[in-house]
Amino acid sequence: MRELFVIGIGAGDPDQVTVQAIKAMNKADVFFVIGKGDEKQDLVDLRTGILEEHVAGPYRVVDIVDPPRDRTPSDYEGVVDDWHERRAALFEAEFASEPGVGAILVWGDPSLYDSTLRIVERVLARGNVSFDYSVIPGVTSVQSLAAQHRIVLNRIGEPVHVTTGRRLAEGLPDGVDNAVVMLDAHCTFTQVPGDDVQIWWGAYLGTPDEVLISGRLRDVEDEIQRVRAELRERKGWIMDTYLLRR
Amino acid sequence: MRELFVIGIGAGDPDQVTVQAIKAMNKADVFFVIGKGDEKQDLVDLRTGILEEHVAGPYRVVDIVDPPRDRTPSDYEGVVDDWHERRAALFEAEFASEPGVGAILVWGDPSLYDSTLRIVERVLARGNVSFDYSVIPGVTSVQSLAAQHRIVLNRIGEPVHVTTGRRLAEGLPDGVDNAVVMLDAHCTFTQVPGDDVQIWWGAYLGTPDEVLISGRLRDVEDEIQRVRAELRERKGWIMDTYLLRR
Ligand SMILES: C[S@@+](CC[C@H](N)C(=O)[O-])C[C@H]1O[C@@H](n2cnc3c(N)ncnc32)[C@H](O)[C@@H]1O
Ligand SMILES: C[S@@+](CC[C@H](N)C(=O)[O-])C[C@H]1O[C@@H](n2cnc3c(N)ncnc32)[C@H](O)[C@@H]1O
Repeated sequence: MRELFVIGIGAGDPDQVTVQAIKAMNKADVFFVIGKGDEKQDLVDLRTGILEEHVAGPYRVVDIVDPPRDRTPSDYEGVVDDWHERRAALFEAEFASEPGVGAILVWGDPSLYDSTLRIVERVLARGNVSFDYSVIPGVTSVQSLAAQHRIVLNRIGEPVHVTTGRRLAEGLPDGVDNAVVMLDAHCTFTQVPGDDVQIWWGAYLGTPDEVLISGRLRDVEDEIQRVRAELRERKGWIMDTYLLRR
Repeated sequence: MRELFVIGIGAGDPDQVTVQAIKAMNKADVFFVIGKGDEKQDLVDLRTGILEEHVAGPYRVVDIVDPPRDRTPSDYEGVVDDWHERRAALFEAEFASEPGVGAILVWGDPSLYDSTLRIVERVLARGNVSFDYSVIPGVTSVQSLAAQHRIVLNRIGEPVHVTTGRRLAEGLPDGVDNAVVMLDAHCTFTQVPGDDVQIWWGAYLGTPDEVLISGRLRDVEDEIQRVRAELRERKGWIMDTYLLRR
């Protein structure tokens, strides 16, 4: 492979891709698609839909099936690191057999809780293949969440903290009054204390299944938990994000 | 006016607009453009370029000149609040005289350090005009910064803190190791202590004048200050953002 584009494609709506992303997609000969297993076939289909809608010429799709990963590790960072190394080896093998321009599509933006750039750097660091690469930024699920709720993430002059469910469970740092939470499989908002906290929650943002709930956290937390469990049960997977403000 | 779109248009590159943004722009009869005074004519030109490139039909542009604003207030929030009220009154008058679909283009994304949505809510709250409005998310300058440096904002599992120069001057909260700083006119990174801090800095991101500098903060802080002062002097204005990591 001589060139690689890592392309942010927005949070789910095919119209959320940028002109820059479309131009890059149309330069690619091959798209590497990372499979996450059957339950997220919806996401693979969404990605395929984006390609069909925006790419004119012929292209190939190469599936790279994720190596298995321990989802409840005691040594979280070590396990993730090992998993990335195994992923890098898989990518290296695929990259080595491709003569043209490659592309990897990333949900949202590649700079936020996404491992693609780390894998690419790892592949290059292994020194067995070489290529140029560039990153095309995309609309994140954070921006989608805010747009659908028509809100500004920060109050005037205040910081915005973007964090994970895992970190939220440890409590928010002092001085953080606006927190966007991603990667939360456990409705950690229920553990946030206080009667004066607001929440803006969104699931499947940008897709036809999008659901939005907002209000005083103590008023709507049960509803969000119930709706989230139902949706997850019905579709077999869920992606949700929320803003907390105190 | 019967409908209003608040549209994120990316950080400067006309190709950074989304398909969704282009569709919304093409529904608009009139674009409200907020003038910031002569020194930022470049930005007005960039915006005009985006319209010319992406909008097919005829459209009108209505300039709304910002009311004057005290830039060094003692009562920061009060002054900003008063300024927004005066802006809302101006917008109300313009909206009232428009029969069709309106649009406001916002640099980056409307959810991040931008007052447009607050103004729109204020106009509606005044109760003199009524209309539907929706928000089209855009690529933020934060995503642009990360893409151009080809970095992930977070280390694995860590939070990302987005803040202002003003807040950074008060010190970062404990537990915040990745901070994106916006709206910093004073090179506040020089006040951040420590020998183990990295910086990724970018100015005029997405425009032909883009400049990137990165490295150990203590090694490159003088260079960034010098380059920033030169650029600002040459063009009469500057927009810059940076990631700090410790
Ligand atoms: C691995 S992270 C990737 C984030 C992505 N790079 C971005 O820019 O949005 C996945 C998390 O993003 C959030 N997310 C991504 N897409 C989403 C969507 N369509 N609706 C709601 N949340 C979404 C969820 O919090 C999910 O756990
Ligand atoms: C009022 S805020 C608006 C942010 C915008 N809504 C966004 O999503 O990026 C303006 C600040 O954004 C950053 N910024 C906006 N555009 C930029 C660009 N093209 N290059 C570098 N920084 C930019 C700078 O820190 C600037 O002080």
